[in-house]
Amino acid sequence: MASPETKIRLDFEHAAPIEPESLEVDASAARRRLEEASGPGKEFLGWLDLPARSLEANLLDAIESAAGRIRERDALVVVGIGGSYLGARAVIEALQTPFAPTFPIYYAGHQMDAAYHGGLLARLAEQDYAVNVISKSGTTTEPGLAFRLLWQDVSGKHDGAALKDRIFATTDAKKGSLRSLADAAGLTSFVIPDDVGGRFSVFSPVGLLPIAVAGIDVRALLAGAREMQEMLRSEAAANFAESPALQYAAYRNACYRLGKKIEIMAGYQTAWTFVMEWWKQLYGESEGKEGRGIFPASVNLSTDLHSMGQWIQDAERTIFETVIDVVHQEGPSVPARSDDEDGLGYLAGRPLHEINRTALKATMAAHHEGGVPCARLELQQLNAPTMGALLYFFEYACGISAYMLDVNPFDQPGVEAYKSSMFRLLGKTGHG
Amino acid sequence: MASPETKIRLDFEHAAPIEPESLEVDASAARRRLEEASGPGKEFLGWLDLPARSLEANLLDAIESAAGRIRERDALVVVGIGGSYLGARAVIEALQTPFAPTFPIYYAGHQMDAAYHGGLLARLAEQDYAVNVISKSGTTTEPGLAFRLLWQDVSGKHDGAALKDRIFATTDAKKGSLRSLADAAGLTSFVIPDDVGGRFSVFSPVGLLPIAVAGIDVRALLAGAREMQEMLRSEAAANFAESPALQYAAYRNACYRLGKKIEIMAGYQTAWTFVMEWWKQLYGESEGKEGRGIFPASVNLSTDLHSMGQWIQDAERTIFETVIDVVHQEGPSVPARSDDEDGLGYLAGRPLHEINRTALKATMAAHHEGGVPCARLELQQLNAPTMGALLYFFEYACGISAYMLDVNPFDQPGVEAYKSSMFRLLGKTGHG
Repeated sequence: MASPETKIRLDFEHAAPIEPESLEVDASAARRRLEEASGPGKEFLGWLDLPARSLEANLLDAIESAAGRIRERDALVVVGIGGSYLGARAVIEALQTPFAPTFPIYYAGHQMDAAYHGGLLARLAEQDYAVNVISKSGTTTEPGLAFRLLWQDVSGKHDGAALKDRIFATTDAKKGSLRSLADAAGLTSFVIPDDVGGRFSVFSPVGLLPIAVAGIDVRALLAGAREMQEMLRSEAAANFAESPALQYAAYRNACYRLGKKIEIMAGYQTAWTFVMEWWKQLYGESEGKEGRGIFPASVNLSTDLHSMGQWIQDAERTIFETVIDVVHQEGPSVPARSDDEDGLGYLAGRPLHEINRTALKATMAAHHEGGVPCARLELQQLNAPTMGALLYFFEYACGISAYMLDVNPFDQPGVEAYKSSMFRLLGKTGHG
Repeated sequence: MASPETKIRLDFEHAAPIEPESLEVDASAARRRLEEASGPGKEFLGWLDLPARSLEANLLDAIESAAGRIRERDALVVVGIGGSYLGARAVIEALQTPFAPTFPIYYAGHQMDAAYHGGLLARLAEQDYAVNVISKSGTTTEPGLAFRLLWQDVSGKHDGAALKDRIFATTDAKKGSLRSLADAAGLTSFVIPDDVGGRFSVFSPVGLLPIAVAGIDVRALLAGAREMQEMLRSEAAANFAESPALQYAAYRNACYRLGKKIEIMAGYQTAWTFVMEWWKQLYGESEGKEGRGIFPASVNLSTDLHSMGQWIQDAERTIFETVIDVVHQEGPSVPARSDDEDGLGYLAGRPLHEINRTALKATMAAHHEGGVPCARLELQQLNAPTMGALLYFFEYACGISAYMLDVNPFDQPGVEAYKSSMFRLLGKTGHG
C-alpha cells in the first residue's frame, strides 16, 4: 500500500557547509548495526517492526472496543510520564486544533504540580471520567501519586462493573504492581512489550489507546508507520540517496562534528508543539550520555522569530536548524479591505498557509545567510498516515544517529540519578 | 509598602565551581551604566520606572473600565506577537490553572498557522467576542493578517457603538497605521510608550489590559513590581549581597565565561511554561547578538526529567541551570491505600507540593553532582504581587547581564533579516 502522501523528503539546499553525504559510510555502518542487531541495547529493538506487529494482531479490535467504552464517559485522564504519555499527546495535539477537540483528554502524573492536580481534581468533580494509567512498573513516583488520587476519587464513586468501565491499565504483561492491581481488580489491561523502551512505544497500546479515544484512526496511523518501516528497512534504502533516515542522521552528526552543538527543530504550525517535545525526549534521552550528544531544542515559528529569532540570527554560531514544512494545509485567505492602512493589501486573497510557507522559506534563507545550517523536512500534509510515517522516521533515524555517535541509543542511566537522590530525601526505605 | 512576600532570594549552594561574587566589580559597573543611562540603547530605559509610572497615572482606571466592557462579551482575542503578547500570557497562565480560567482568552496573530486561525475563527463564530489588537506600528505581518481576519468578522456583524465596544487598540501615541485606524473609527485605545521596547512592556497597557480582562488584580501586580523596582534601584542594592539582580547577572556571566553556553530555566509547576517563554525572549533577544549570548532554554520538571533529564545529567557539560522554587502552594495530599501495592505508602498523608519541592532539591543535587552548576531562585508564593516582582527582577537583571556581555540590551537588529527576506519573496513593493 505504498502511497506517495506519506513520503518524507529532506532538502539540504540551505545546509552548507554541511554535506550529509560526507558521512555516508558512517551512516550505513550504523544502519547495519541496527538491522543486524549487533550494537549495544539490541534487546530493545522491538520497535523496529512494531507498526506491522500492532496492525497484524487482534490488538486493534481490543483497543477500539476499550476506546468506545471510554468515549461513553465525559472525559479521559491519561496518567503517565515521559514515553508513557508524550507519543499519544504528540499525535493527538498534532491532528486537532485546540479549538475543537473531539473528546476531552487530560494528562496527569507527568509531574507533581500541586496546583495543577488540585485544579484537575476540582474540574473532574463534575465529570464522569475514565482513567488510562500507563506505567511499566506501576511504582514510578509521579504517575503513581496521580493514580492514587484518581483511584481514590473513582473507587469512592463506583465499584464492580462500573469501576471496571472507568479504569484501564497499560503495563507489563506479567510483573509489576500495576499488573497485580489490574488483575486483582479485573481491569481491562494492555501490554507494554518488553523489547520496546518508553520513548519508542507510541505504536504500542501506550500510544494507541489514548489516540483512539481522541477519535483518531489508529489503523491509518499504523498503516503510515508501516509504510515508512517497510521503505526505510528495504534493501533499496541501504542506498544513501533513497533513505531520508540515513540523510538526517548523517546531517546532524556532520553538524555536531563541526561544532554545531544545538539542534533547533522548527515548526510553523502549533500542531508541532508536542511532536517536538516527543522528539526532544527521543533524541535527548537516546544520545545525551557519556559527555556527548546534540542538545535538542525547539521553536514555534514565526512566533519565536519575535523571541529566539534574534539569537538564532546573530549569536553564537553553534546551532543548526531542522524545519518541518507541510505542503498542503486548508485555512483562511487574507481578506481585502477598502483602505490599505495596514500596508498588507498586497497579500489580499492569498491563502494564509501560502504566506506561512513563504515565511518559512525566507527564514531558512536568512538564518543560513547568518551562518546557521538549515535542513527542510517536507511532508505532504498533516494527517494520521503522515504522522505515523513521520514518527517512525524519527525513531529509525535516531537509532542510526546514536550509533554514529557511538552510544547505546536504548538506555537512560542518567534518569536514575534524580530518582535515587529523591528517594533518599523522601526517606524511602533502602535509600538512606 | 515593603512586604517580605515579594522577596526573591538566590541560593548558589549547588553552583560550584561558579562563584558569582567573582564578577561583583563587572556587575556593579554594568548596573551603573543602566542607572546612569550611559550604555548603548539608553533611549529605551522607560521600563526602569514603568511600574511606578503605571501605578500613578489615571491609566489604571481606564484599563479597568475597558476590561469591564470586554468582560461583558463571551471572550477576548489578544492579537500580538513577541513582546506584544508574551508578558500578558505569562502572567495570565501563571496565575490560573488551565482547568478554571476566569474568562476565555484566545491568542491570534502570534504566527500565521492556517489550521490554528481557521479553527479559531470557527470557534468564534458562535461567540460574541472582543479583540485587543496590540502593535506599535500596525503593519507587522503576523498580527496584521490576523487583525484583518477578525476585523472582517466583527465589522460584518456590528457597527457604530457596538463595534467600538468590541475592538480595543494598544499602539503608538501618535503615528502608525493602527493609531490612524483607531482614531478614525473612534476606538478605545491605549498607548505603548516610546521609551519601552516590546519585551520590556508587560507593565504598560500592552500587558495590563489583557491581564485585567483575565480577572487578575493589575494594581497588585504593579505594586509587587514597584516594590522590586524600589528595592533593586535603592542605594543599598548597589551592594552585591543585597541585590539578587546583581547576583543573577554575575552568576550567568560567570557560567558563560567558563564555557557554559546554555542556560536551562527549570520550573516545577506548569504555571511557569509561558513565564519561561517570556524569559527566553527577554534574554535571547537582549543578549544574542554580535556572535555572543547564552542560549536560553527551558524545561518543565519533573516532566522533562523523563525526556531531557538524561541529557542534562550525562551529556556535554556546557549547560547551567536556574531553578524556580515556590515555597508555599496549596494542593492535594497523597491518599492512603489499604494495600501498598504501588510502594508509595511511605508518602501517604504528605502534601503533593512538599514532595514536589523535595524532587526539586534532589534533582539540583543530582545535576550538580553530574557537573551542572545550579542556582535556586526562591519565591514565597505564586500570586499577582510576587509575579510583578519576579518579572521586574528578570528585566533589571537582564539589563545588567547584557551590559556585562558588552552588547546593547535594547535593540534586535537580527529580527529584520527574516522580514526583509520574506517581503522580497512575497513581492512587497520596495523589497525587490
